Amino acid sequence: MPVPRGFRSAGLACGIKASGRPDLAFVVGDPGTVAAGVYTQNQIVAAPVVLSRSRTPGTIRAVIINSGNANACTGDRGFRDAEEMTELAAQQLGCTAREVLVMSTGIIGHHLPMNQLRKGIPAASGKLQADEASFLAAADAIMTTDHARKVASSQFVLPSGKQYSIFGMAKGAGMIGPNMATMLGLLLTDFPLSATQADHLLHEVADRSFNCIRVEGHTSTNDSLVLMSGGGQEDLRTSPEDMALFAAHLQSIAIELAKKIPADGEGATHLIEIRVRGATDRADARQIAKTIADSPLVKTAVAGGDPNWGRIVSAAGYAGATIEPAQVALRVQGFSLYEKGAPCEFSAPLVSAAIRETRDVLVEITVGDGPGETTVWTSDLTVDYVKFNSHYST
Amino acid sequence: MPVPRGFRSAGLACGIKASGRPDLAFVVGDPGTVAAGVYTQNQIVAAPVVLSRSRTPGTIRAVIINSGNANACTGDRGFRDAEEMTELAAQQLGCTAREVLVMSTGIIGHHLPMNQLRKGIPAASGKLQADEASFLAAADAIMTTDHARKVASSQFVLPSGKQYSIFGMAKGAGMIGPNMATMLGLLLTDFPLSATQADHLLHEVADRSFNCIRVEGHTSTNDSLVLMSGGGQEDLRTSPEDMALFAAHLQSIAIELAKKIPADGEGATHLIEIRVRGATDRADARQIAKTIADSPLVKTAVAGGDPNWGRIVSAAGYAGATIEPAQVALRVQGFSLYEKGAPCEFSAPLVSAAIRETRDVLVEITVGDGPGETTVWTSDLTVDYVKFNSHYST
Repeated sequence: MPVPRGFRSAGLACGIKASGRPDLAFVVGDPGTVAAGVYTQNQIVAAPVVLSRSRTPGTIRAVIINSGNANACTGDRGFRDAEEMTELAAQQLGCTAREVLVMSTGIIGHHLPMNQLRKGIPAASGKLQADEASFLAAADAIMTTDHARKVASSQFVLPSGKQYSIFGMAKGAGMIGPNMATMLGLLLTDFPLSATQADHLLHEVADRSFNCIRVEGHTSTNDSLVLMSGGGQEDLRTSPEDMALFAAHLQSIAIELAKKIPADGEGATHLIEIRVRGATDRADARQIAKTIADSPLVKTAVAGGDPNWGRIVSAAGYAGATIEPAQVALRVQGFSLYEKGAPCEFSAPLVSAAIRETRDVLVEITVGDGPGETTVWTSDLTVDYVKFNSHYST
Repeated sequence: MPVPRGFRSAGLACGIKASGRPDLAFVVGDPGTVAAGVYTQNQIVAAPVVLSRSRTPGTIRAVIINSGNANACTGDRGFRDAEEMTELAAQQLGCTAREVLVMSTGIIGHHLPMNQLRKGIPAASGKLQADEASFLAAADAIMTTDHARKVASSQFVLPSGKQYSIFGMAKGAGMIGPNMATMLGLLLTDFPLSATQADHLLHEVADRSFNCIRVEGHTSTNDSLVLMSGGGQEDLRTSPEDMALFAAHLQSIAIELAKKIPADGEGATHLIEIRVRGATDRADARQIAKTIADSPLVKTAVAGGDPNWGRIVSAAGYAGATIEPAQVALRVQGFSLYEKGAPCEFSAPLVSAAIRETRDVLVEITVGDGPGETTVWTSDLTVDYVKFNSHYST
């Protein structure tokens, strides 16, 4: 898969995870690289988020990421440890610590094993390479309870005739919890952006991708999504056509990557796409989509292959957004189950089979005739989710 | 258990439930009885709720309640059916249909079997009695997936020297879903109240009892809670002391009854009491308590006996209410797990045992130094909940 010019990566095991699996990723851009970030809305914020948030948008050379320990709820020492991680990385690159971001994911409330990191960061620096294998090694090193590596990339030629690439990596399966935790994402491109442009674009893109996924609605203390542009050496006076098309490519990669998280949701057997139309505005559409996505009754119905329109329609009704009950319509896997505020005749076994036979379930609900619409992705709720999260873990 | 003067009840099986279990309850007050009601906030509202809401507060003689069919999402015919249920009841009592309320609970989207009700309501009328057994028969007839009858009552002497009683019945185990559904509650008293007084009191009382329980946070289309006062023949000029003490008794019965619902939550193995203190105001405290109560990660942790403070503290952090991270403190079963924004040293096996050994789990969280506080009750999330709600049911 294509990787953008101007970046090098490394991933390795430095001893944070008792399992011996990879737990340290280092992603470095050439001088002139800029970055923007979006971070958790949780008021309980992990030290690496506080640090990285204070440094973006801006000129950024690198991101150092560890898994196996979230460095969250770790007090003053946690902040000193996060700062030291960026100092160790900066020493290797000959830049200032302010030009390095840090992300952490894993168990909450435990101090980072800094001795491992003091050896691991120089070791990772020694392994930095610009080839695809090194980017995949970095993507592997940020995983926790993920079953599969989450990467997406594309290469494209813009109207100006120039060719660019986007490479994204992410991790996340449950939103949070000791021993698991957190959504992290990193988008890299060689398309030239200023830090301000990157910041504006990332907020737009995140709002229609990573901010539209749910596993169980529990927001992590560590969620971070960073966009790095290594094209800073190029002329930034991009044509509007190039910029618009680049934004569309970035949005597409972000959605592809974001969907991999609920698809890999803890215990999940279905990825549920919920499309809401006809709401008063986009915020109302989002509120309705999230309420449906978070309803355990909707999620268990999908797990069981049950075309249970009553649970979906009533979830829209209690979302706290205005709906027009007489105009409500619902389709599941393309089958009309509810129209003009009343249930339709339909073959329950047929719809049930259409849910059971695939991992991807499409729920389309119209709630009125307003212009507000959105799409949200979530996972179903299974016995395995409960078993996994009931397991004694503190 | 004591029952108030001035009321008669009946419960029987009229053939709505295929199982042959009781499915029709009739509760009748003497002339002069008044009632107030609070109803679902869902915008998808069942016909009986629309009808009863339009008639309260006011002079009300009776409530007719069926289980096995929610009469929700049933269009115009649903409204005619709900209206006819109150007409049939009114004919038996010689009052107007406007003096009768109606509640329904059970499967959504199916029309009521009116032939059963046209025979059942006169039959129930013939069985009306003022004895305890008849009130318990009515309480049995409103059950759906409930494992146990939910009743509470008290008898007390007020400062004026007069003796009164309160009798309450409720049903509910999951908040909604075809074949299950809905919280219903009925509070009866012989304490003299005007309809306006009853309305004021009921809103106060519901806000600290039935509005503070959660199973999975999915608000039903049919939720109804009604307070009937049969003391209307008496002088309404109650002393402030009597009124205050009566209100306290009513609050206590309402809380006792409300807690029985999450305690009987589908698949539940624990009743979780969540006390929030130190919030900016009561609304913020409520928002934080509900977010903790609705978190599947918190609920699965309790099911597994896991003293997982990270999940509880981070749920408070994403509730959307202001908290002071550095002042956050958490106690579970009396054990301090988190203080001044950082985890405490504690014996995890000891706290785990304290959760496993009882059905009642107490979670106390302080989120700042504000005056806002509240208590919310919820059930844990178990493998049995998911199995039950994944079962094909449409």
